[in-house]
Parts: sequence; structure tokens; C-alpha cells
Amino acid sequence: MSRPTSAREPDGQRIRRRGRRPAGQQTKEALVEAARAEFAERGFDQARVRSIATAAGVDPAMVNHWFGGKDGLFMAAMDLPIDLGEVLARILDGAPAHTGERIVRTFLSVWDPVSGGPFAALLRSVSSHEQAAMLVREFVAERLFGRLVATFDSDQPKLRAALCASQVVGLGMARYVIRVEPLASAKPETLVTAIGPTLQRYLTGDLS
Amino acid sequence: MSRPTSAREPDGQRIRRRGRRPAGQQTKEALVEAARAEFAERGFDQARVRSIATAAGVDPAMVNHWFGGKDGLFMAAMDLPIDLGEVLARILDGAPAHTGERIVRTFLSVWDPVSGGPFAALLRSVSSHEQAAMLVREFVAERLFGRLVATFDSDQPKLRAALCASQVVGLGMARYVIRVEPLASAKPETLVTAIGPTLQRYLTGDLS
Repeated sequence: MSRPTSAREPDGQRIRRRGRRPAGQQTKEALVEAARAEFAERGFDQARVRSIATAAGVDPAMVNHWFGGKDGLFMAAMDLPIDLGEVLARILDGAPAHTGERIVRTFLSVWDPVSGGPFAALLRSVSSHEQAAMLVREFVAERLFGRLVATFDSDQPKLRAALCASQVVGLGMARYVIRVEPLASAKPETLVTAIGPTLQRYLTGDLS
Repeated sequence: MSRPTSAREPDGQRIRRRGRRPAGQQTKEALVEAARAEFAERGFDQARVRSIATAAGVDPAMVNHWFGGKDGLFMAAMDLPIDLGEVLARILDGAPAHTGERIVRTFLSVWDPVSGGPFAALLRSVSSHEQAAMLVREFVAERLFGRLVATFDSDQPKLRAALCASQVVGLGMARYVIRVEPLASAKPETLVTAIGPTLQRYLTGDLS
């Protein structure tokens, strides 16, 4: 997605960018990192695009340019540390009968290194802001679990995706936000063994 | 717990109470209701005991008198619409093999009538406030699921209680806060059938 630096970018960033970091992947990442911190601290509603851009040393106009606005930036900030395509690829890479376990393992491998990171911020946003709830709904239920369920030929695919989302969101809540012991400090494989079968049943088992 | 009204209450409420509602269960409930609204609107941190008391037409000192302060009031506000003892009694009333189903049914019977009610507020508080997280931890994981698990003779009782909490909290998130369809508008019995076995396995199944 990176473009060669040009002397005449369509939005004239060349002039406004003077004295700031060069545009490109690095600056984009700085913006996403600053957004992560701002959303974590203030939630979706109170987070300010201008503050985020300032913290990243980027012109606020670049937020629209790169992310289409605050919503897109929020999505990008939550989309970490690996992207959805990579998450899906990891989960689908193996025997279908162990997909549930791989969902738990992948989820923990993404969030454990940042101790849940923006998970609390995400929940704060979701619980106070319909737009954030919609984004999570679209992202988690449709783009992630919807596509996973679609790889099986199960009945009630939407209910299955929603059930998976409920357990995974609950796992994140219990481990990173409420921090219920011993779940909060359990080894990942303990949770893979405990919760994997739940997700496997939600994906392919009998729900009636 | 109600006391007969006395002409000389230890804290002298009789005089300060003049022109306000009489002390007693009714006023206590008004306070809890006002607290519920305030916590729902502002979250734990921003909620003000003084505002709650004013809304309920009660002297703020009564909050300490009855609930020991803001934390206790929060507990009382979240403890609704039926108390923990009643919840436990409902869940335990039946065949042990269907305890998981009764957990889901009871959870929905408590929260569905208020459309999740303070659930979003609770999460907002939990995600921004360690004290609120601690309260939920104590309330949900220890007092509720800890006691349920203790009625079975299972290994790893604390992990089991935490796993139950993770699925139930996730169910509340998905149904009332994120509102993932079709889970958000599914009939209770659909969710009882779908999620009951998950909880049953967390209570008594093989987790290794």
C-alpha cells in the first residue's frame, strides 16, 4: 500500500509536511500507535483526531487521507498486532476438528503480548458508543467469525458466529479486563484445552 | 434487615430527615434505583453519591449508613433485579446435569426484562476502574460461580468458576452491549440450548 514519495501528491501534503516526519508506512504506524494510546485513555467518544495526529507528529488531514476518518483509525488501532487476513490464515491452518483450539491460541497470541492492550479501551468505547459497538459487531462477528463459520457447512451460521464471538469476547474480558484468577494468569494451553471445545461445538456441533 | 423507626436513631437522621421521605426499605430502594441510573449514565468514576442521594430525595449520609459508601451502593445497584441468594436458589433448583442450562435461563430472566439495563454501565465501569473490576470479580466469580462450582466435587474449582464467568459475561456483552444478531434477539431457550452445555462442561466436564 505504500506509494513512492512524489513531488506533487494530490493533497499537497508535501508543503504541509515540511518539518514533520516523511509520509509512508512509518508515519502511518505512528498514527495508529498514537490512536491506540488515545483510545485506551479516553475511549472512542472522547478521543480527538487532532490530539492523535499531534502526538504522532502528523498533519490531521492525513487521518482522513489514510483511514477515512476517526472510525477507520479506530478500526486500524484495534486491528492489531496482526491483520485480519493473517488471523484467519492462522486459524484455518490445520485440521478442521481443532479450529476451536486454534481460535483460542491465536486470540491469546495476539493479545497476551500486549496484556490485553486496547481491549479495555475497546470495551469502554463499545459500552458507551453505538458506532464502536457496530464496528466490533462488523469486525468480530462478520469479518472474523462469519468467515470462519462459512468454511464449515453448518446450519445457523450467523448464530454460530455470534456464539463464538460471545465466548471470545468473554475470554478477553475475564483475562484482560476483569482479570479473574486463575484464568487471568493461566498458561495459554490451559485455556486452549478448556475453551477450544466450546468454540468447536459452536462452529460445528449440534445446537438444538 | 429493616429496623423499627425510632425517635432516636444513632445518627440523628430523625431531624435531618424532616420533610423528606421516611427512612426504610422504600427509601433505600429509591437510592438504589437512582444509583442505577447514575452509574448507567456516568460510569463508576464519574457517578456522584451526592447526585444520587439528591435524585432519591435522601440525605447523602444515608449512603454510608446503609451501604458503607459508593462501592457498596454500586454493588447494590448491580445486584438487581433479584438478589444473589435468589439467583443461586433458582440455579440450584433442579437436576445437577442441567445446571448449565439453568444458569443461562436465570441470567436471561434477570437481564432480559431490563434489556441488559446496567450491563453496559457495569462494563464501562469495569474497563476504566480497578475497584469496579474487583467488585465484579468478587461478585461474579467468587460469590456466584464460586459457590455454584462448590456444589460439585470437581477439580480446579476456581478455573471452572472463571470459565463460567467468561462465557456468561460474554453472553451479556454479545446480547446487550455489542448486540450481535441473531444472538441479541434470540429466544431465551435458543440460548439455553446453545450455551447451557458449555457451562455444564465448565462446571463438571473434563478440562484437561
